[in-house]
Amino acid sequence: MIKQKVQIDIHRLMKTLEHSGEIGKLSQGGICRLALTDEDKMMRDEYVQWLKDSGLQVRIDDFGNIYGRREGKNPDAPPVLIGSHLDTQPEGGRYDGILGVLAGLEAIRTLNDAQIETDRPVELINFTNEEGARFEPPILGAGGLSGHFDKDFVYSRTDREGRTFLDELKRIGYLGAESNRIQQSYCYLELHIEQGPVLEHKGLDIGVVTGIQGMDWLEVKITGQSDHAGPTPMSMRKDALYAASKLIQLIRETVITENEEATATVGRIEIKPNSINCVPGEVIFSVDVRHSDDKVKEQLSKLIIEKISIAAAAEQVKIETRKIWETSASHFSTRLVETIADTANELGYSSQKMISGAGHDSKYMNEITPTAMIFVPSADGKSHCQEEFTSQDAIEKGANVLLHSICKLAGASI
Amino acid sequence: MIKQKVQIDIHRLMKTLEHSGEIGKLSQGGICRLALTDEDKMMRDEYVQWLKDSGLQVRIDDFGNIYGRREGKNPDAPPVLIGSHLDTQPEGGRYDGILGVLAGLEAIRTLNDAQIETDRPVELINFTNEEGARFEPPILGAGGLSGHFDKDFVYSRTDREGRTFLDELKRIGYLGAESNRIQQSYCYLELHIEQGPVLEHKGLDIGVVTGIQGMDWLEVKITGQSDHAGPTPMSMRKDALYAASKLIQLIRETVITENEEATATVGRIEIKPNSINCVPGEVIFSVDVRHSDDKVKEQLSKLIIEKISIAAAAEQVKIETRKIWETSASHFSTRLVETIADTANELGYSSQKMISGAGHDSKYMNEITPTAMIFVPSADGKSHCQEEFTSQDAIEKGANVLLHSICKLAGASI
Repeated sequence: MIKQKVQIDIHRLMKTLEHSGEIGKLSQGGICRLALTDEDKMMRDEYVQWLKDSGLQVRIDDFGNIYGRREGKNPDAPPVLIGSHLDTQPEGGRYDGILGVLAGLEAIRTLNDAQIETDRPVELINFTNEEGARFEPPILGAGGLSGHFDKDFVYSRTDREGRTFLDELKRIGYLGAESNRIQQSYCYLELHIEQGPVLEHKGLDIGVVTGIQGMDWLEVKITGQSDHAGPTPMSMRKDALYAASKLIQLIRETVITENEEATATVGRIEIKPNSINCVPGEVIFSVDVRHSDDKVKEQLSKLIIEKISIAAAAEQVKIETRKIWETSASHFSTRLVETIADTANELGYSSQKMISGAGHDSKYMNEITPTAMIFVPSADGKSHCQEEFTSQDAIEKGANVLLHSICKLAGASI
Repeated sequence: MIKQKVQIDIHRLMKTLEHSGEIGKLSQGGICRLALTDEDKMMRDEYVQWLKDSGLQVRIDDFGNIYGRREGKNPDAPPVLIGSHLDTQPEGGRYDGILGVLAGLEAIRTLNDAQIETDRPVELINFTNEEGARFEPPILGAGGLSGHFDKDFVYSRTDREGRTFLDELKRIGYLGAESNRIQQSYCYLELHIEQGPVLEHKGLDIGVVTGIQGMDWLEVKITGQSDHAGPTPMSMRKDALYAASKLIQLIRETVITENEEATATVGRIEIKPNSINCVPGEVIFSVDVRHSDDKVKEQLSKLIIEKISIAAAAEQVKIETRKIWETSASHFSTRLVETIADTANELGYSSQKMISGAGHDSKYMNEITPTAMIFVPSADGKSHCQEEFTSQDAIEKGANVLLHSICKLAGASI
């Protein structure tokens, strides 16, 4: 059972979050702290100091992942890992990733203050380049650590200016040793904002995350005929944008009709020649398809491609489709999921099991160690934007669930 | 009556067209020669040399319009003006505008070779920024000359990088004196490709253009909500692109149902944040509406705005519409139209009177001097694209109609 009096210090945690919010701060309250930039270095330097001030042993691995280790009574026991990421989107919020790292630090500070010893060591990890906003694909630090990505692959990723991950990692002074990677682990826990509207909508405190949806990224190219807008009668056109607009309708209808949980998003579109007085001759758009069951996701992508191909033919335009990225669904540890659900319940917080629509460091950590996530509500479901917000009350509850889940898993005598 | 033996030299004209086709040449045979770019400057420099080589007096006015004057027996008589433009769309063809200028040059070369004197002077004009692909609105050079646009308005137009018309005009060295504008004129004639499929479809040689359709340009802004593509259920989205796709459907259906001659084109679209894994929060698109009856055009634009506003409300997105440009229909000089029709007939070419769906320099020239146009067929009706094509035979016929119309109007003793 949980001793209610041991609670994280929400004021200290909010101060730490505010401090983070100053590094790369944007005009509307958000943060621009792309991975391996000067802002990321500044944040890392501060953060390492905080780890040391909390008595943690600090290590940096060869992907720039930062570990802060709090020793356990049994130093040889596989540690309980917690963490997330401190990098952001170009116009990112103050909580995405950051909350998981700094609430983890707050949990450790609370253990220190309460002089609570754990049987297992606890390691807090800040992963490199989770966002993928600078170096694609996302989740490179955790993906490298888990072996999902080759080291050469990670090192050779380039930003839009052609600078490599490795060069930038060296430049900011965070290229550590491969031997500093975690060698063993008991489990991995990650607190994160939901980035969706469900918890807020249902008035719930905690999301107990059972896994992450798989994802297909499709690219669709429509070729019609570019004509002058004036002298080409409507009946003689092959308008690629008009055809694309039909396909975009169809994609939404298909995913809604076929499956309740699934999502399909047309998020990017480029048209040629993109001129007011030209009938568009070419359109390229993306489709992001997600579901927690890989088979359902596969079938849905296939169905979408079938349906839009038929519709394109009816519009007398040419269509080419290709899959440009794919990740399979993740299923988290049932035992950890139940531990989190029980902890929330014992603390008197309302909760619900849910699937994550977004990728996280947990995705690849799940490949090497039992993993689960704790979600807290996102105001209006907003994320990856400056308006991203989670209330102090929600943060406090999430951090307490993290603290007491750590205690249970690491074996604390409280 | 026309002396059949005086004919333009089609081989020389084709060579000149080929030379133009090299400047800003694209991989599929088209041209990218946006107004006031380095490519435009290169073309202008060559062209000015050609004018001088043909013995013409060259002037540049304060809009960068280039005049080549062939003196008449009566230098004080108002000149016969001919011309068009040498700038292109981003993926433009080899004939749109260019044919009118270079066929005009060929007509003058033919007059020179045959030592034909005209009573009136003949002035050949290359107008600046007819396409409007770089600086909006289109037809800035002719519009400035005719007084349709204020000089300050023309000068302050900016491209997407924020560079002004005036700065770019200066940069390429084509800012001339206001005193170089034409001071008086007898009439203006413009040879142009049809840019539509009608002449080819009917097997006709020449289109005798009686006027130009009026045009409305609308801008539609849709504001939904940008969300992360993963964790936002389909039912809780305000997807601005999905909403826009419905409106694009509706615009086409409306124009087809309401009026047979009318056209409506969504040619440009910009979305934010335009990221694969983000639900689009904002979409801005253009609508180009045309008809030869200004009242019909007005009613159609109004109907489109009404219908899409209702549809946007149903999709729970915010919509803002504004008219960003408008031109009324033009009605050309009956006397000139008949001159062209008679000339085509006397040369033994088939012809038809028709209305132009596209705007042209003639549109604004018609406001200051009697004007008419000669159309030649466009293969497959294609224009504003690299495949744009007009056969050598069609070009020869069109240029001969231009030559002999000039002779009649300028008073040549042949």
